[in-house]
Amino acid sequence: MRTVYCGQVTSEYEGQEIDLVGWVNRRRDLGGVIFIDLRDREGIVQVVFDPDREDSFAIANTLRNEFCVKLRGKVRPRPQGQINKDMITGKIEVLGLELEILNRSAPVPLDSNQENSEELRLKYRYIDLRRPEMTQRLMFRSKVTSFIRRYMDDHGFLDIETPILTKATPEGARDYLVPSRTNRGKFFALPQSPQLFKQLLMVAGMDRYYQIVKCFRDEDLRADRQPEFTQVDIETSFMTSEEVREVTEALLRNLFNQLLNVELGDFPIMTWHEAMRLYGSDKPDLRNPMQFIDVADLLKDVEFKVFAGPANDPKGRVAMLCVPGGAQLSRKQLDEYTKYIGKYGAKGMAWMKINDVNAGAEGVQSPVAKFLTTEIIESLIKRANAQSGDILLFGADSYNVVCDAIGALRLKVGEDLGLVEQCWKPLWVVDFPMFEEADGRLWAMHHPFTAPIPGVTAQQLRENPANVLSNAYDVVLNGFEIGGGSVRIHQQEMQSAAFEVLGISEEEAQDKFGFLLQALQFGAPPHAGLALGLDRLVMLMTGAANIREVMAFPKTTTAGCPLTDAPSVANPEVLKELGIAVTVKDNNDA
Amino acid sequence: MRTVYCGQVTSEYEGQEIDLVGWVNRRRDLGGVIFIDLRDREGIVQVVFDPDREDSFAIANTLRNEFCVKLRGKVRPRPQGQINKDMITGKIEVLGLELEILNRSAPVPLDSNQENSEELRLKYRYIDLRRPEMTQRLMFRSKVTSFIRRYMDDHGFLDIETPILTKATPEGARDYLVPSRTNRGKFFALPQSPQLFKQLLMVAGMDRYYQIVKCFRDEDLRADRQPEFTQVDIETSFMTSEEVREVTEALLRNLFNQLLNVELGDFPIMTWHEAMRLYGSDKPDLRNPMQFIDVADLLKDVEFKVFAGPANDPKGRVAMLCVPGGAQLSRKQLDEYTKYIGKYGAKGMAWMKINDVNAGAEGVQSPVAKFLTTEIIESLIKRANAQSGDILLFGADSYNVVCDAIGALRLKVGEDLGLVEQCWKPLWVVDFPMFEEADGRLWAMHHPFTAPIPGVTAQQLRENPANVLSNAYDVVLNGFEIGGGSVRIHQQEMQSAAFEVLGISEEEAQDKFGFLLQALQFGAPPHAGLALGLDRLVMLMTGAANIREVMAFPKTTTAGCPLTDAPSVANPEVLKELGIAVTVKDNNDA
Repeated sequence: MRTVYCGQVTSEYEGQEIDLVGWVNRRRDLGGVIFIDLRDREGIVQVVFDPDREDSFAIANTLRNEFCVKLRGKVRPRPQGQINKDMITGKIEVLGLELEILNRSAPVPLDSNQENSEELRLKYRYIDLRRPEMTQRLMFRSKVTSFIRRYMDDHGFLDIETPILTKATPEGARDYLVPSRTNRGKFFALPQSPQLFKQLLMVAGMDRYYQIVKCFRDEDLRADRQPEFTQVDIETSFMTSEEVREVTEALLRNLFNQLLNVELGDFPIMTWHEAMRLYGSDKPDLRNPMQFIDVADLLKDVEFKVFAGPANDPKGRVAMLCVPGGAQLSRKQLDEYTKYIGKYGAKGMAWMKINDVNAGAEGVQSPVAKFLTTEIIESLIKRANAQSGDILLFGADSYNVVCDAIGALRLKVGEDLGLVEQCWKPLWVVDFPMFEEADGRLWAMHHPFTAPIPGVTAQQLRENPANVLSNAYDVVLNGFEIGGGSVRIHQQEMQSAAFEVLGISEEEAQDKFGFLLQALQFGAPPHAGLALGLDRLVMLMTGAANIREVMAFPKTTTAGCPLTDAPSVANPEVLKELGIAVTVKDNNDA
Repeated sequence: MRTVYCGQVTSEYEGQEIDLVGWVNRRRDLGGVIFIDLRDREGIVQVVFDPDREDSFAIANTLRNEFCVKLRGKVRPRPQGQINKDMITGKIEVLGLELEILNRSAPVPLDSNQENSEELRLKYRYIDLRRPEMTQRLMFRSKVTSFIRRYMDDHGFLDIETPILTKATPEGARDYLVPSRTNRGKFFALPQSPQLFKQLLMVAGMDRYYQIVKCFRDEDLRADRQPEFTQVDIETSFMTSEEVREVTEALLRNLFNQLLNVELGDFPIMTWHEAMRLYGSDKPDLRNPMQFIDVADLLKDVEFKVFAGPANDPKGRVAMLCVPGGAQLSRKQLDEYTKYIGKYGAKGMAWMKINDVNAGAEGVQSPVAKFLTTEIIESLIKRANAQSGDILLFGADSYNVVCDAIGALRLKVGEDLGLVEQCWKPLWVVDFPMFEEADGRLWAMHHPFTAPIPGVTAQQLRENPANVLSNAYDVVLNGFEIGGGSVRIHQQEMQSAAFEVLGISEEEAQDKFGFLLQALQFGAPPHAGLALGLDRLVMLMTGAANIREVMAFPKTTTAGCPLTDAPSVANPEVLKELGIAVTVKDNNDA
């Protein structure tokens, strides 16, 4: 129906008659002439209707916003004063010759002049997506998936589909269940990831697998989680962790280069311990220049218990941030930061303004200065390499609380004071502990199929599990974990040792992962893989505020869909056929 | 770890030392030397271990089938008598220098010398997929999806993901339900297709959409159905049905050309009525040369009620097939065919062997000849253009039974007598009736959003629905419907008329599809689309016997997975949290 998309009518069409289809983005009547901004997914073009062409003018006169129209028009240069250099179509306009209304539109329920509530935007998503910003995000996402697919394909990776109706997966979050009708009383689970299937594909000899695949987690949704999300899932045989990282890094480098014209460069590699030491986080945002400065050794002997307690506790941590220019922070701002880190478990926040670094302990202003000797204050300033006008912010608590609280504070203060560089800072975090302790037992930090670093034997794993590092790797970009993976265990003895350490009985292991254990008996190859979070990656690349902005039809934070009204009440006949019954009266009953 | 895949070691590597990884496909000991066929996903290469290299020979001696190994070896030409021209690697062999066992294998539970049961193959799918035939099918499938994606991408189609957790869809089959935990007592449904979402994407102005997407139907599984299957889903705005067919046809033509080196040529277009008339089927296999020959007019006045009844009934049909060389069929074979069409509702099968066409009615042999006049017999022979040695097979019953029974008979006899040409015969079937009658009411032949052919008004639809043709099209290949689609209704008045004809009340329409009806109010563009069944397409292209052979992890015909043992019993705690309970004691309780 069209000669060209509205957004692509440039001067090269001047003098030509063209056909366009699209939506009325705006109508203006000026000096007896009607101007229509006609919009399609590629952009907007200006169409002019003159009163001397009576037929089309009369129709144009009935146009309202979001009418869908078809028109024939002649492309001509815009009058001098009207040229818009910011628009691709800004040098021309289209003189409307023939006009047909393909469909009328009721007044749209979204206000283009103000922020609409997310509920309303999701209810009328098909209108919300017409906004050029939203259209462009979906178009960009399509480019990203297309690029990734071509890249993987060109590098020998096979696109293989894995089941959506499957068995409960061991990722730890809740599974969505699907009652079976042909096996009543039994349930499928929607996969949290194709982890076990991709490992089985390696056992099957597929060598290199990838899939852009939906995954499902029935979690309590935080701001940036969705019940279904999309993963770029990768698995390879016979590759080391270094090789998997190389493949992934090259993919991301090429993606950013081709689609954003950004050079990511080589990704630095940081151990998990180093990341925790310097940033208190396993996904540090390296755009922020501040690092943790540990000072427990300096504060072991002070009388101030808030410092001395954690400083002498092997499970404690005392660390500070030196905030450039932070001495300007008001008491009120500091109180707000104290409140902020309270959310992360911190009981308070000591601070020390360095008003004049040359004046030593005399030049500082701090509620805690009175508890510290001159020598200690000067040692703190020296270790921080602080300058006049900086502030030192202290965290002293258990190791985890200090990491969480000061880590969060680092990001917030960095953002507030404009310390964050506008750039892309990727890195690899490696050498995670294999297990973490909680509730008096050990848990797999990644998943129970993660291999230890090379050289660790099954016996060593059994004997000293807490000290074993895993051969896992996370890829982090600007403070977001955009992907993670590991070398997998491919030998049964090691897998049994891992289950043993995790307190998973032989019986439980057989019940849950028996098919994987069995597969390891039949010449399973060494294999490793990784998964990238596509939604988050696209969110970062488009600068969107959250992943819902880069999904066509996301759910709300209560996992509902205002558009279709899903989930909804089921037909009792259907439930009967499935052999299940609803046991609650309403949403909030127990 | 490897220099090259096993299956790609050609003469160009002669004289080089290479590294290989793979699985022991077969081991032979001949004249003190060990021959290993080493296999990976690309193929097989012959490796030789000489006893004079003691270390590697000793390890080679412990190798068993399906051990996973790594080796270094030197490529050399095979001795003259051992060259295998059918193998890519058939001119060379690899002299093993170093050998490492990466993983051992227990004896595999699948027998390579005989057909294994499908249950066993699915239980050990990771071993079954190692068979070169299976590996190649999955690799081919990956090529197909890759080709389709590039093609769609290069033609301006956006890859946009639609939700898997959604509302019950109106396709007619049963939905899989997913209980919601955050909205207890309510359920999501897994989509039978993204139909409504892709229409909404058109309303949103995305213009051209495609997605290779999982769809779900909780149906009683026939041999060639799966609970989850994959669709190449396409939707476009502002395109006519002809243009959608052109895009699809070009995609398929290019796909077959690039991947199979087959020229499909232009697809013939056949109306639904013509297809039913000539083949008794809306998915005719054009490789089979036989067509239905209607003879009701000739048999209206015979005394033989079996013929005269349906011949005089407006809802009846009397048709025959002329089977070339069919006079050779024995009485027993004919009895079997009679039994066969009984499954399709036919109460019997009249036949007439044409032993000598020149002898007219004298030259035929038929149990029904005695009921027919010489003139009628000769008219039948003439209309069939029968030759000596042919047989005429008759169907006389209701229109539907004759179509089904004689349609099935046509395929079976064609197959049995080798009448089916080995080739590719695609076609479009168009101009379907908009509605079909059953149980005293009208049903949408495609789905309720299908538009009538151009020119039909909402009023005409209301007044004479039974005669309205829909603007739908199916693409058929070798007797399989590989895809189908339609122009959609984009105006509310037409959609209301369609619902009215279908007996869907305003209230029901609002409840089920309210969001689509609402979307049509806001400048919905004219739009049309199509979906291809990827599994079936790949099945046909690979010559596989059923779609399970082209899926990595299919379900059994009772929708179970022998590999993971899904579906399985759910944890009662989890069910409680979901607010549901199982009401059946075991699988077969009501």
